[in-house]
Parts: sequence; structure tokens; C-alpha cells
Amino acid sequence: MSTIGKVITCKAAVTYGPGEPLVIEEIQVEPPQALEIRVKITHTSLCHSDIHFWELKDGPILFPRIFGHEASGIVESVGELVTDFQPGDHVLPLFMGECTKCKNCKSRKTNACENYSPSGRPGLMSSDQRTRFSKDGKPIFHFLGTSTFSEYTVVEHGRLVKVNPLAPLDKICLLSCGVSTGLGATWNTAKVEAGSSVAIFGLGTVGLAVAEGARIAGASKIIGVDLNNEKLGKAKTFGITDFLNPSEYDKPISQGYGVCVLCGVVTDSTSVFSRHPVYFLGGRSLTGTLFGNFKGVTQLPNLVEKYMHKEFQLDEFVTHELPFSEINEAFRLLLDGKSLRCVLHVGNT
Amino acid sequence: MSTIGKVITCKAAVTYGPGEPLVIEEIQVEPPQALEIRVKITHTSLCHSDIHFWELKDGPILFPRIFGHEASGIVESVGELVTDFQPGDHVLPLFMGECTKCKNCKSRKTNACENYSPSGRPGLMSSDQRTRFSKDGKPIFHFLGTSTFSEYTVVEHGRLVKVNPLAPLDKICLLSCGVSTGLGATWNTAKVEAGSSVAIFGLGTVGLAVAEGARIAGASKIIGVDLNNEKLGKAKTFGITDFLNPSEYDKPISQGYGVCVLCGVVTDSTSVFSRHPVYFLGGRSLTGTLFGNFKGVTQLPNLVEKYMHKEFQLDEFVTHELPFSEINEAFRLLLDGKSLRCVLHVGNT
Repeated sequence: MSTIGKVITCKAAVTYGPGEPLVIEEIQVEPPQALEIRVKITHTSLCHSDIHFWELKDGPILFPRIFGHEASGIVESVGELVTDFQPGDHVLPLFMGECTKCKNCKSRKTNACENYSPSGRPGLMSSDQRTRFSKDGKPIFHFLGTSTFSEYTVVEHGRLVKVNPLAPLDKICLLSCGVSTGLGATWNTAKVEAGSSVAIFGLGTVGLAVAEGARIAGASKIIGVDLNNEKLGKAKTFGITDFLNPSEYDKPISQGYGVCVLCGVVTDSTSVFSRHPVYFLGGRSLTGTLFGNFKGVTQLPNLVEKYMHKEFQLDEFVTHELPFSEINEAFRLLLDGKSLRCVLHVGNT
Repeated sequence: MSTIGKVITCKAAVTYGPGEPLVIEEIQVEPPQALEIRVKITHTSLCHSDIHFWELKDGPILFPRIFGHEASGIVESVGELVTDFQPGDHVLPLFMGECTKCKNCKSRKTNACENYSPSGRPGLMSSDQRTRFSKDGKPIFHFLGTSTFSEYTVVEHGRLVKVNPLAPLDKICLLSCGVSTGLGATWNTAKVEAGSSVAIFGLGTVGLAVAEGARIAGASKIIGVDLNNEKLGKAKTFGITDFLNPSEYDKPISQGYGVCVLCGVVTDSTSVFSRHPVYFLGGRSLTGTLFGNFKGVTQLPNLVEKYMHKEFQLDEFVTHELPFSEINEAFRLLLDGKSLRCVLHVGNT
């Protein structure tokens, strides 16, 4: 029986307050409005940014809320004016959207789309400032325009990209955030060249994807830096040539010139980067990246193709798989530093 | 009568303490040692970095000292092992030297030569940790390896570049620091592209050279920012399209993405650049430059040729000319914001 045009009742992992355990329960998902698409999520993985915003106590009060942004799925139905997606399309949600038309989308220098930024009005759909999720008539807020901790979600047109239907959805979900961020930080932002040296601070999924990107770019030295010596084992898989634990050294371990790329959200909102300006003379650069400077709509399909041609390692980032119902266990694994990526099987595919 | 191999007695502007007026007096300049060159300075201009170090009270005590680093001259004699310079060569001293052999000199990513850096052991020649200047037998310290406030100076081999002898020495002295720094910050560091927008904070010589570089690179908008409205007049000569005085605005005037390039020394050693790391996500970069990332030995001759082919404006930066004896007046003009460059005629050419 077709669900098109109807409210869907399905399971979602709902959060009711900062840091509170997620509750798997039945919710209602409205049909997509104009320029929106309803997606059946097949797999969602867990990224540290989910944890960051889930824990965040000093943000706006947007509860109950459905988190999740690193996922894969299949289009269930499309709203009016949507002509380039149709039911059955395999898709990745994009927390960094791409309208392809704004000044920033037309620039090679940023991927910060003016219309579908992650920092847009949080929790609501932009067309009507309402939610598409509810439970017993009460709204449930969205997250980053994606909200993938749900069997069905509704996303805006610029926050979705169609990919090769032969690509395994249980792996390419990782390209929806973390692995792309690391690869892109290396290829698009730092523009690592053959023979160069790369130091990576923090060997989680993003850090190891940086290592993978650096290995492919031909870096001759890839130094992994982490406070946890257990990270070294997996790190070797991704081409780390040297490992340093700063806690074992008296002196700072940074020197020389080069580009420093900050990758993603910093948990502590009071953290401040402070340096005397002279520090930047002589060849040092500081920059940052969201989503590895990838433009999701136009560039992700090609990244999926590269994966299909085995041009980079992706499966190796999946250290755990769990049913959707065990999402709180997935949170625990990531918080304890035990997992790189835990893929949650959401729908039946 | 040849001076080769002999001590030369000549005039120099000597500083005896931080911020104290310069004293023009006779000093002794030793012959060059191995891999050193003695240069007859014909012209020296005054750069704000001279003032910075001249005023500096919390640096090492290196007085008496001969400041000056933006200059032009003619080789008087060469020390042993110097094969690529000979008496009569027209030269520019380089506070950022280039040995052409070290790791950094071989890298495209920095111009911070490991052997001839401006922050090497200050005030002394590296071969024997002595000075080549003295007065009545007492040593006078060098400055940045150049010390151009003197009729004769001795520099190390990697701190000198030979240029086209047809180029006017009273103009190309400006390429020895300030104008090259601004042009290079635009071309080499920020890599300004046609159609881009450039904002310049501070419209002194370096800032206006940035404007000139941006104009040549085809920037469509060149915004000059300065607290002194009188800077606008000269600014138009160098292609400034818009002028802003921040003191006339309530709101900060920076927004958007792009590359921020810090050009040169910051006077206040307690200044700290502080930002939350999230500021750098989405396309902002912070970097800096010394000498516009130019490699002096290999790139300055070509910059002089560009000037000879009228590819950029240089003469327009010379707002004042004075005899060497009036160097304290040149200091005053720059401190008061009255001059861009005051060229001091040092020797008789």
C-alpha cells in the first residue's frame, strides 16, 4: 500500500533533553512539502557532532528532537516542484546543503551554501518554519536539516544527493559526513601534495580519513597524534607512518611551517585559539573545513564512484554494526573511544 | 685609491639606545670575510620595521647599532669564496636571505631560509660572531644582516642580490622590503585572482603595494581601511576603489570568507590574535607573510625587470627625498604618517 501523500507512522530515536538517553518510539512523519523529499533511512552512523549537540547544554532549547546526520537511504516520495528525485532513488542526506545557485555555491572557495547552511534556523523546515515530525500532535524538532535517527525523515531539496544505486548503503552512509570530511580536508583544504609531511591530531574517523587521504595523495610522512595509544592499531591500516602521544613528551610537538586545518565542531564553546600574529609569518596558515570543503550535491556522486572503484578505504571505518534499537549502545561505544563508526541498521532493505 | 682589503672609515647613522635620535658619525667598516660582501650603500629608505626595532625596549640590548634594511647599493669588494659578485655590481640587500640550498629554500611553501633568516643571531655576523662595524675600536652591532644606514656595510653572501644595473637605484631600494612585501602578499600569499574582492587594513607603503598588486591581479573591488582619512588621496593612485574608516562605523566591518594575510611585524609584542576555532570553518584562512613570500636571490631580479617594463608603479611610493644627514627627519615623517617612503641619498653615485 503506497505511503505517498500520507502521514507515515514509524520508529525514531527521540531525545528529550541534553545528554538524556534516546527513546525509540513511534512518531508521525508528514508528507514532503514543495521542494522537500521524504526519505526512508536505511542506515545511519553516529558522528561525534551528534554527541556534541546532544550533550550541548547552553544551546537553544530544541527538545524533543531527532538527531542524526550521517546516513543513507531511499527516496519514499517527493514534494511539488521536485523533478530530479523520484521514489526508489538511493540518496545521502547533506547537513551542508548545496543549492548550486547562490554566490557561495558558485565560488570555488567555500562550500558554505547560503540557503542550506548547517547553522540555518535550527530545528525547523525553512519553508514554513514548522516541523515534519510529531508525536501525538506535538512537534519534534529537526537537526541539521537531516534528522536521520528515524525510519523516515523529510529533507529540503538542497540537502540530498542521489548516488549510484549499486553502492552499498551500509557503507556509503559514512560519506555523508565523517569520512568525506577527512578526505576533503586533505584533498580540498590542505591540498596535500606528494612527498609532504602530514600531522593529524586526533585519530578518530575524521583523523583517519585524513590519513587515508594523505596516503592517497602521496604524503611521505603521516604522523598520527593521539592521547590514546590504543588508536595506533587501527591507524596503521590507514597509512599512519609515525605515532606520537603528546602526554609522553615534555616539549610541544608542533614546529615548522605548513597549513593547519581545523576539521569540524569544537565541543567546548569557550575554547579560544590564541597566538601572537608573528606566529603566522614565514609560512604558517590556519584554516578550517566543514564537510571537507566538499560541495555535496555536485561532488558526492563522484566520491561514491571513487569508492566503487576502490580508490580509497571505507569499509575499514565500520568497526561496529547494531540494530537501530541499540542506538544508545552506539553512543556509548563512541563516547568511550571504542568505535570508529557504528552503523545502525534502520530500515529493512 | 682602492679600498679593497682595507678598513673603510665612512659615515653611518648610529643608534645608542631605544628610541634615541640617530647620530651621524664616522665609523670603521672592516673588509668582508669569506662569503661576505662589502657594499657601498647609495640609497636607503625607511621602513616601519626599522622604527619598530629602533623603539623596542624589551628586546636584547644591542647598542650601539646601525639600523636600516631597505636599500640599494654597489658592491665595493668581495670576500674569499664569493664568485658571483664583483665590484661594481648593483645590488639590493635582503633581510630575508636565501641560501638556495636548505630545505626551506627548496620548498615552494616558505621563504624562511634556514641559514639567513631575519631572526638569526641578531647583531653579529654568523661566521665569527663578531661585527664588521666599529668606532674607535668598540664594536657596533648589525641589524637584520643588512645595516643600511651606513655609507658602507658588510653583508653575508645569501643576503644580497644582483640586479639590472640600468635600474634606478633611488627607486629600486623600495623593492628591498616594503613594496615587495605588499606585492608578494597579494601575488604569492593571498594569490588574489581576477574579479575578487580585497580589503586592506592600513594604507601605508605595504598596504598600498597590496592594492597595486591586487589592481594588477584584476581584483574588482579593493577596499582600503584606515583610521586616517588623509590616506585616501594617495590610495586612489594605487587602485583603491572603496575607502572605509572604521572609526566611523558602529559595527565590525569584517565578514564573509577569504584569506587574511598578516604582513610583517606587529609592534605591540603583547598583541594576541584570539578566535573561537569555529570562526575558521567554512572558508576562512589566516596566514602571514614576511617579504611577501618572495625568495630574494632568485626572484628579486625578475621583480626589478617587471618594474623596468613598467608592469607596476614604484616611483609613486617615494613621497620624500632627503640627504642621509637628515635621517632623523625621515623618522619623524614616517612616525607622523606624513610619508610613504622617504629615500635617503647616502652615497655619491
